[in-house]
Amino acid sequence: MSKSGEEPAIRALIDAQIDAFRRKDAAAAVATLAEDVVAFEMIPPLVLPREAARSEQAMAGWFAGWEGPVNIEMRDLTIQVDGDVGFAHSLNRLFGTRLGGGITDIWMRSTLGFRRTADGWRIVHGHSSVPFEPADGFRARLDLQP
Amino acid sequence: MSKSGEEPAIRALIDAQIDAFRRKDAAAAVATLAEDVVAFEMIPPLVLPREAARSEQAMAGWFAGWEGPVNIEMRDLTIQVDGDVGFAHSLNRLFGTRLGGGITDIWMRSTLGFRRTADGWRIVHGHSSVPFEPADGFRARLDLQP
Repeated sequence: MSKSGEEPAIRALIDAQIDAFRRKDAAAAVATLAEDVVAFEMIPPLVLPREAARSEQAMAGWFAGWEGPVNIEMRDLTIQVDGDVGFAHSLNRLFGTRLGGGITDIWMRSTLGFRRTADGWRIVHGHSSVPFEPADGFRARLDLQP
Repeated sequence: MSKSGEEPAIRALIDAQIDAFRRKDAAAAVATLAEDVVAFEMIPPLVLPREAARSEQAMAGWFAGWEGPVNIEMRDLTIQVDGDVGFAHSLNRLFGTRLGGGITDIWMRSTLGFRRTADGWRIVHGHSSVPFEPADGFRARLDLQP
């Protein structure tokens, strides 16, 4: 649902983030985030400290752990926006080759929150996760597919 | 940020859901959800089928696994709303006594998406998770605290 006609602008922001990951461009990835972004990531802590969430150095360090591009394929993307606030959710496949040759290929859930600032739309909240399996030692299910 | 003055209405909806959990009132809990709610829960599958997300029977079955109330304590709640769309994120402590006497007491991350319908504000998206620990067999971290 988009009453404000801003759905394409939000879609462009999401695409810019995915493109920055593919190119492993830390500055471009951080530029999609608001100053006060609150990030819930797949690994601890519960909440990423703000300075870490917007750190180009931390982002570049994470990118450096991949041999080639960091690929994200989105499925079932839904965007809701009105006025200067919006959110989106999707199932994201994260895949690529790690340093040393290991393959990462997992489906996660992604929710993003957006706010229109003086500089345009920015990501103010991100929540990425996989469910865990109570019947298997509470292990993360990295093998689920949509 | 609330440009629409609707933040109290959304807060009331969140409180209604928490109160329904405490009272283990499945009908009241389901009533907070939109018809087309998309739920990412802590346990599989990746996405809860829509009919399951709004099933009073499924909700009542989950409530039946607890001896007393299902308690939720919220921390760092942030609500952003404009027009007919909003979202919120918080750290939620879920705690209570399971059937048989076991104690559940975990902190999770919660993100909710909202839309104002003809019947008022409803939850159209929910995302609950805990991070996993790559260094410990990818186990869910059920012991983290804010």
